[in-house]
Amino acid sequence: MATNGYTPEGKPAMSTMQPLTNDEDHVLKSFRVLIADLCQQFNGGHPGGAMGMAAIGVALWKYVMQYAPHTPDFFNRDRFILSNGKGQRQCLYQTSSADWASKLGHTCLFQYTFLHLTGYKAMTLDQLKSYHSDRTDALCPGHPEIEIEGVEVTTGPLGQGVANAVGLAIATKNLAATFNRPGYEIVSNHIWCMVGDACLQEGVALEAISFAGHLRLNNLTVIYDNNQITCDGSVDLTNTEDINAKMRACGWDVIDVQDGCYDIHGIVAALKQAKESTQKPTFINVRTVIGVDSAVAGQAVAHGVALGTNNVAELKKEYGFNPEEKFVITPTVRRFFEDIPARGQTLVNSWNDLVERYSKEFPEPAAEFQMRTKGELPADWNKLIPKEFPSKPTASRAASGLVFNPIAEKVKTFMVGTADLSPSVNMAYPGKVDFQNSLTVIQPDLRTTCGINGNYSGRYIHYGVREHAMCAISNGIAAFAPNTFIPVTSSFFMFYLYAAPAVRMGALQELQVIHTATHDSIGMGEDGPTHQPIELAALYRAMPNLLYIRPGDSEETAGAWIAAIEAKKTPSIISTSRHALPQLTQTKREGVLRGAYVLEETEGSGRADVTLIGVGAELSFALEVAKELKSKDLRARVLSFPCQRLFEKQPVSYKRETLQRYKGIPAIVIEPYAPNGWERYADAAICLTRFGHSLPGKAAYKYFGFETGKMAEKILKYLSEVKQDEILRSEFVEL
Amino acid sequence: MATNGYTPEGKPAMSTMQPLTNDEDHVLKSFRVLIADLCQQFNGGHPGGAMGMAAIGVALWKYVMQYAPHTPDFFNRDRFILSNGKGQRQCLYQTSSADWASKLGHTCLFQYTFLHLTGYKAMTLDQLKSYHSDRTDALCPGHPEIEIEGVEVTTGPLGQGVANAVGLAIATKNLAATFNRPGYEIVSNHIWCMVGDACLQEGVALEAISFAGHLRLNNLTVIYDNNQITCDGSVDLTNTEDINAKMRACGWDVIDVQDGCYDIHGIVAALKQAKESTQKPTFINVRTVIGVDSAVAGQAVAHGVALGTNNVAELKKEYGFNPEEKFVITPTVRRFFEDIPARGQTLVNSWNDLVERYSKEFPEPAAEFQMRTKGELPADWNKLIPKEFPSKPTASRAASGLVFNPIAEKVKTFMVGTADLSPSVNMAYPGKVDFQNSLTVIQPDLRTTCGINGNYSGRYIHYGVREHAMCAISNGIAAFAPNTFIPVTSSFFMFYLYAAPAVRMGALQELQVIHTATHDSIGMGEDGPTHQPIELAALYRAMPNLLYIRPGDSEETAGAWIAAIEAKKTPSIISTSRHALPQLTQTKREGVLRGAYVLEETEGSGRADVTLIGVGAELSFALEVAKELKSKDLRARVLSFPCQRLFEKQPVSYKRETLQRYKGIPAIVIEPYAPNGWERYADAAICLTRFGHSLPGKAAYKYFGFETGKMAEKILKYLSEVKQDEILRSEFVEL
Repeated sequence: MATNGYTPEGKPAMSTMQPLTNDEDHVLKSFRVLIADLCQQFNGGHPGGAMGMAAIGVALWKYVMQYAPHTPDFFNRDRFILSNGKGQRQCLYQTSSADWASKLGHTCLFQYTFLHLTGYKAMTLDQLKSYHSDRTDALCPGHPEIEIEGVEVTTGPLGQGVANAVGLAIATKNLAATFNRPGYEIVSNHIWCMVGDACLQEGVALEAISFAGHLRLNNLTVIYDNNQITCDGSVDLTNTEDINAKMRACGWDVIDVQDGCYDIHGIVAALKQAKESTQKPTFINVRTVIGVDSAVAGQAVAHGVALGTNNVAELKKEYGFNPEEKFVITPTVRRFFEDIPARGQTLVNSWNDLVERYSKEFPEPAAEFQMRTKGELPADWNKLIPKEFPSKPTASRAASGLVFNPIAEKVKTFMVGTADLSPSVNMAYPGKVDFQNSLTVIQPDLRTTCGINGNYSGRYIHYGVREHAMCAISNGIAAFAPNTFIPVTSSFFMFYLYAAPAVRMGALQELQVIHTATHDSIGMGEDGPTHQPIELAALYRAMPNLLYIRPGDSEETAGAWIAAIEAKKTPSIISTSRHALPQLTQTKREGVLRGAYVLEETEGSGRADVTLIGVGAELSFALEVAKELKSKDLRARVLSFPCQRLFEKQPVSYKRETLQRYKGIPAIVIEPYAPNGWERYADAAICLTRFGHSLPGKAAYKYFGFETGKMAEKILKYLSEVKQDEILRSEFVEL
Repeated sequence: MATNGYTPEGKPAMSTMQPLTNDEDHVLKSFRVLIADLCQQFNGGHPGGAMGMAAIGVALWKYVMQYAPHTPDFFNRDRFILSNGKGQRQCLYQTSSADWASKLGHTCLFQYTFLHLTGYKAMTLDQLKSYHSDRTDALCPGHPEIEIEGVEVTTGPLGQGVANAVGLAIATKNLAATFNRPGYEIVSNHIWCMVGDACLQEGVALEAISFAGHLRLNNLTVIYDNNQITCDGSVDLTNTEDINAKMRACGWDVIDVQDGCYDIHGIVAALKQAKESTQKPTFINVRTVIGVDSAVAGQAVAHGVALGTNNVAELKKEYGFNPEEKFVITPTVRRFFEDIPARGQTLVNSWNDLVERYSKEFPEPAAEFQMRTKGELPADWNKLIPKEFPSKPTASRAASGLVFNPIAEKVKTFMVGTADLSPSVNMAYPGKVDFQNSLTVIQPDLRTTCGINGNYSGRYIHYGVREHAMCAISNGIAAFAPNTFIPVTSSFFMFYLYAAPAVRMGALQELQVIHTATHDSIGMGEDGPTHQPIELAALYRAMPNLLYIRPGDSEETAGAWIAAIEAKKTPSIISTSRHALPQLTQTKREGVLRGAYVLEETEGSGRADVTLIGVGAELSFALEVAKELKSKDLRARVLSFPCQRLFEKQPVSYKRETLQRYKGIPAIVIEPYAPNGWERYADAAICLTRFGHSLPGKAAYKYFGFETGKMAEKILKYLSEVKQDEILRSEFVEL
């Protein structure tokens, strides 16, 4: 495929016009054939995407990226994110006017194959062949997964990878600004992110792109595999924007590469120029041809058929390979990549040397740096949490600040951010410095209109109104190295529905991120049903590897933070109230760590009549109702139940003694949420199964019957009905 | 505030320099003072946003928009969407260097007040004053809500309104292309959407903006209230992109208005120019000053204090008003707006005339148009559903096509779309025409590279990889008029987590949108844990006013569609499998409408030993396990349980007879999802409480123990344990 050195818009494109060496040519072709074989073995066969990206891969792994296959966790390595990791979508589109061979998953094979070729030990040829097999210990899942050596984050849900890359770039910038000293650039890595057409359509990526431009993350390069094809057909079915102009408007440098299939050196030049950018992140728009050199290559409207046995054979013949041989990696290919592990170890060694010298020169930051790289916190972090709290009514969002601000102030591991709700979420710790661009000489620190400035050593991130990107970026910060950072996000709880796909990805990747979600109840009031969460807790209580914690007062908020900070491989949501809550004498931070605990036991030896379960902002309601019931000669015990997941982890004996349902005591939960899931612990619920209402907080509670008297009445009625109707006892009842 | 007629970039801005009349000046000032009073009454007081937008409101409601306050549901009215409807965020930001009075919710008062002034009958002055009160029948909630006359969609969660506006513009285009005839422009309305800085940062809006540019929706105007202030401070804390250049890159026309506070006629000129655009949607960048003319107006760094009693009084004095008087609407103001209701009725009457003449001239489309405007379907729509289905194993996503494609083909009410998964979701009905731009003379129909073309009368929408915008846009289409359209969306089930905020808004607004979600089980296979839903069903089963339906075979898929199409005020998710499912002789479409039903009863009169609950893609597992148990002399009855919400609506007697738990028969649900919520119907679950694994579908089931033999074993063990340990019987057990 020829290039004339110009982009379709007539601008000069990056191109060296430097011919490929014979070895390079052979490597490209071998790679494509290998991909075709790997796909063909399970008879699925849409290798087009990975084939088209071969030259980009060679440029990155052979010529540009700094990494060490034999020390895959080398701290200062460049990070590569494959964001366009589409799976095996069956993308063959047919209309009466056109058959259209479309794009074509299997992009992850691109990465796996380069990991194999460059010498990552775990990624054997045998493993490569396990792709799409039923081998349960395979290292080649349908999308790249963080557990695999050489894979930095799990991708798959489109757009997430872009935001993760922004997070990784932020991590680098912050560590560099914090720890580097003149002559000692101990953190200096670059972030490379590969995207397809789809990633550039997803909102989370668009949010992250805008934010990265604002932050001037010049250590971030996004490489666009521009083949103009998506599942439904050509991209122009759905997208006709001028992507280069859009990226420039967002504060990015843009480089075009015209021949992305063969011009390895043009790509290398673009990548190097990107790496040398001093002011902006770089977007490299690389034109590729899907399924290049195969029967359907580059034909916009073609009778596209997936590569099958015949086409793979044809491709091999065209390349001068033996069509009978499969999975061939020639000595030439091996030789081409064989220097990489040693080259990587040299990097590792010289970095180790540098850090050693640094440690002698700057023992104090070095000690902290070592602690951070080990993922450790200062031993006494929890002593920073107040032992006691003011007894006056306090919103748990305010309590969250009381608990965590002293920690955030002292412990640099925490990168605190908010989606434009600083005044509401109370995460702005005393003396906070904002994370903002600070390119010093060339570009002075950002001077904002409002006068709140910062620099790259800052640890408070104004994410803008970008909830989804905030959480996906935080995953990237956390993924930089295990527990080197603990990102904290903040917004209203309801807007963690916007961010849910990223929260999920954090849970899936076992990344410790702490989400502080405020305004978590109808008690938040006037904002109305769009802001009042009803069903959202059901999602997060069901989500694997996530702690959803609703503390009931300041003391419990302390417990929630302790649980979240101790959960090194689990993200948490600390879910707090907008409105002031009474401070309860019976609450215990240690209780929160067990998920649920007895707040008030009935006196004397007789059996209790009912167990009331209180939760979060409405915990005090349970105590008040118990008191009311007592005045009517009913014996009610009260539990606080801030976290179902933590409770599930307790021994059976603890769970039984806490709930006491086996004694036949009915349990009733009080929470103005959808009750789904509480059926496990309760027999009835005072709950909400409709959307909320725009009223001041107290009026909203009243409107929905969450008044002490009303609730007590309902409970009395239920208890008497249950006595009369035995069947009712076996059913869950919404009161 | 003066304007020099140029934008900060030096480009000419829209400005007539036409001085305000005395009346206009008085109206602007009166409006601002009224807003200040309305805010001050509840002592909160951040009227800045609405005050800054006063001139925009006058331009729209007095001079440009076509609407009829006394016929608020006039079919061909212009639609106005207030997307920047921030609530009462307490936005006062303080640092040591600057106090910053920030923005300031209460934008909804802007709309409510104009609704009052222009004569919407329900919006009395008394109602206006109910804002932030505890009056439960108030028409002034914290964010605009669709139930209120003159409000088109419920907004609040930022960014949604922009996508809704795109949907409304699509609805207009499609109706116009379908029904208009030369000289009979029966649908010709314009969509006006007001946004703030925040909406332009949200991913869902960015997706919708890109898509609207692609579709060349020239009947859409977005008005940017550009005051450069968000909650955390000035916008440049988080966003420094060139928004005009970005919008142009996305295919929009851009008009600048320099003095948005006073230059009513400059704004009117811009709005009119936008309305006359023939090729593109228009973005009007209007510079406004928050809290204009008040003590803190336009001061970038100011000791900002919320307007208090004193400042409101000061403002009144400055304007020459009596500071002692509150809520004053002078005769001049009344006179200024008094012509609007009559003007509106003239519009309504002449449109009625037009439609009458149209009906005579074109009786056939007119009859269909009448049916559509009444929100009715052809009486025989359900006869289009096949009575029987092939007995060979069929994926339920394929069944979804078999059921719905004949309906989509025939009934124009349905606007079918997909987020770039046409080949996977089977929603492309025979002879489908794509919804694509077709500006006829000026701009020929889009000619795509892949050859799949369309026009504005098309009813198949390629949304691109924009799941969130797809669902938010669909809400807008549905909101055009009740049931005039039934939008259908499609993607993998997992990606309805991306779209969840929009799905929620549809449920909240009682908009009938049908979401077809495929690949809904670990049985989808190799794509791995990022694509395998585990916890997502828990969200949708808990979400109010939503039907989440998992049909078990083709017959049940027919039932799912019938339920969804009959739910005129409720959105549905039809959740289907990627992989082939056996067709069961026992399934009944009518059973789906009851949510759950008995698939197989035990024979004879003896009590059953266990009830097995089968769901969706794994329904057949329950039957197989029952068979296996039978071979071990255990009597198992089997339920199909496709929809919890529909089941909850059944009479108690039906529920009890179906479940038979009151007879002491243990029930066990089989579903590879998080079990949260099944505790209501079952005593134990064969379920998943961890994320999935990348394996081919069958291997994934095996890996997680969903094999008949294994499941039967677990059940036998459980049933024997329950006999020995009575306490266990009162607990929910994950097997």
